[in-house]
Amino acid sequence: MISVDEARRLILAALAPTGAETVGLGQAAGRVLAAPVLARLTQPPADVSAMDGYAVRAAEAGKGATLRVIGAAPAGHPFEGKVRAGEAVRLFTGSVVPDGADSVLIQEDATAEGGLITVNESCAAGKNIRRKGQDFAASEVLIAAPKRLTARDIGLAAAGNHPWLAVHRRPRVAILATGDEISLPGEEIGPGGIVSSNAHALAAFVMESGGEAVILPIAKDTLEAIAAGAAAAKGADLLVTTGGASVGDHDLVQQGLAGSGLALEFWKIAMRPGKPLMFGAVGELPLLGLPGNPVSAMVCALLFLRPAIERLSGLQGEAPATEPALLTTAMKANDHREDYVRATLTREGDAWRVTPFPTQDSGMLKTLAHAQALIKRKPNEPGLAPGSLVQIVRLGGRD
Amino acid sequence: MISVDEARRLILAALAPTGAETVGLGQAAGRVLAAPVLARLTQPPADVSAMDGYAVRAAEAGKGATLRVIGAAPAGHPFEGKVRAGEAVRLFTGSVVPDGADSVLIQEDATAEGGLITVNESCAAGKNIRRKGQDFAASEVLIAAPKRLTARDIGLAAAGNHPWLAVHRRPRVAILATGDEISLPGEEIGPGGIVSSNAHALAAFVMESGGEAVILPIAKDTLEAIAAGAAAAKGADLLVTTGGASVGDHDLVQQGLAGSGLALEFWKIAMRPGKPLMFGAVGELPLLGLPGNPVSAMVCALLFLRPAIERLSGLQGEAPATEPALLTTAMKANDHREDYVRATLTREGDAWRVTPFPTQDSGMLKTLAHAQALIKRKPNEPGLAPGSLVQIVRLGGRD
Repeated sequence: MISVDEARRLILAALAPTGAETVGLGQAAGRVLAAPVLARLTQPPADVSAMDGYAVRAAEAGKGATLRVIGAAPAGHPFEGKVRAGEAVRLFTGSVVPDGADSVLIQEDATAEGGLITVNESCAAGKNIRRKGQDFAASEVLIAAPKRLTARDIGLAAAGNHPWLAVHRRPRVAILATGDEISLPGEEIGPGGIVSSNAHALAAFVMESGGEAVILPIAKDTLEAIAAGAAAAKGADLLVTTGGASVGDHDLVQQGLAGSGLALEFWKIAMRPGKPLMFGAVGELPLLGLPGNPVSAMVCALLFLRPAIERLSGLQGEAPATEPALLTTAMKANDHREDYVRATLTREGDAWRVTPFPTQDSGMLKTLAHAQALIKRKPNEPGLAPGSLVQIVRLGGRD
Repeated sequence: MISVDEARRLILAALAPTGAETVGLGQAAGRVLAAPVLARLTQPPADVSAMDGYAVRAAEAGKGATLRVIGAAPAGHPFEGKVRAGEAVRLFTGSVVPDGADSVLIQEDATAEGGLITVNESCAAGKNIRRKGQDFAASEVLIAAPKRLTARDIGLAAAGNHPWLAVHRRPRVAILATGDEISLPGEEIGPGGIVSSNAHALAAFVMESGGEAVILPIAKDTLEAIAAGAAAAKGADLLVTTGGASVGDHDLVQQGLAGSGLALEFWKIAMRPGKPLMFGAVGELPLLGLPGNPVSAMVCALLFLRPAIERLSGLQGEAPATEPALLTTAMKANDHREDYVRATLTREGDAWRVTPFPTQDSGMLKTLAHAQALIKRKPNEPGLAPGSLVQIVRLGGRD
């Protein structure tokens, strides 16, 4: 059985980014930039005032000086003339500093009366001026690609005069839940049957990860139904199956897909929960086979599906970030499998304190939904005493 | 001037949650639950097998025993008969444990041949069985409201047999950028003009925070244009203005809205960047006036607009979480204003190391977009030496 890291490496190596599409600035947040954003203008476009005040010549605006206000330059309405000795021009934040002036006297330091101002505090040359190009110069790279665009990036691209951006197409992830025992929520449930939870949870996870989810109809446990499900995934960038990847007679996904050209890269990894993870391709369509247990499926989604979607989206694709936490209880030694233990968190000063749920059964969805972190335990890690430092993966608000 | 915390308290106190709407499970992730989700069934619905193996009677399945396999019960197809002494039934993960059996012998511990199995390892009564209701019982509260629904919650709601959920309507946030100097990206830029970046950055921020953004047409610096902008915000849950909240002659938002029934709650707070923050209401429409500087606007959005959207969405609304980091450089003493300093982060072992950008000019959008954290500095905080512990607000991937 291969390790978690090796499995992720193999998955990422097999995936290529989607192509680019042009979207309006209003649709670009959260998308992955496909081409660098170059400034189409210089910002600020000229020397501008950083404050509300008066454009002055510093040498002639010493404390006590009286200056004649010869005009005003509200932002967007530059003053056309020139500021000469003994003169000032009213400015506002963002106003272009007129010719002749070399400083901005802030309004709090001036007394205005009858078209004149008296300087109450001297101001040095260059004071309160934002220089032309201080933020960026035309043709400068504002945002390098690839990058998942933040709201701040959207602001920067707007300031650089871009109404459109090139981003990677959202990866289409087709989700195929299999099993005779599962029904859709609200539909009739057979004897001993349960409601399908994986497909909808995974779809939400895919969307939150920046992908587009296609929930295929549930496939019954027949070779034909599974083959038909895979065929319906045409046009997807990744097919995700849940269930049927274990070792039982009714785990038919591999057999069902054999006729469609299944090529397995690996099957089974040294982790818990989630041992029966499968990866390969059905023809040209990459296939990630998640376990049927909902807890295993979601933990594997975090460890493998999210990086896969990142890679398809044009990013590198990375393991979930870990951070330190202090264990509140003892934990037994771990076996040869990397273990991800559901846990709750509390904050004590600057440290996280983490408490594993006493029962880690992978059938327990409620525990998973209420978990705030996964404690990552290395293979063969010895037992841990209360207070031990462990590494956790925080489960974000929307994971 | 009031403090940041007091300003946030006043804003939150003035806002009420939106009403509920019914959405399909596929649209509910990231939304805030408006009514608790109660289990509509018991999970598992019966005692089920936790493994692939055989239903046996533990007392008669000691090591070396031979049992007759009288049937199979794939998941979704319960075995109708009863298991008696000397008998076994083939089970798979999730299969209902048939009457008479009290344990599941895992298949790795059995040798099957010609309709018989030989027990290679004994198994205790109750072994490998998930008890009826182990995950949850019918009528149990699965998810309490309010809560922003994660992918895991969606899975839990599905398992509880809910095709629909009641969630709070996304708050509608109308965004009004003001100023004679600003143009939309790609449109003609006037002399000394710049491209409007706040509205699009804020819209992305609103959407990422779970709101619906309405970007109103840019309002020129006239009383009429500003009043018309506010009128166009009809039906919104919050009006956000940018610019025009400072002290200059051309800061007309307050005057422009006076005729529309503006009631100010506060104006100006003791923080940097972002001093000219304004909050109140225009008639019944809450109004948050953000500074015109794009950096100030986005920092104020993080500190005030996000909690406001959370509150409107049905949540409590909280200050952004802080975490500890070690300063790499010295910082001067802070003045009386709470300061949020743009910075970059590196990880060293288990600690964040944070480095402020040397220039903190609030006109610099590029610095803001490249920032990874804000260093929070309390009012009148003394100077800090390199290596000092500071509190940071991490700027998430999409903030």
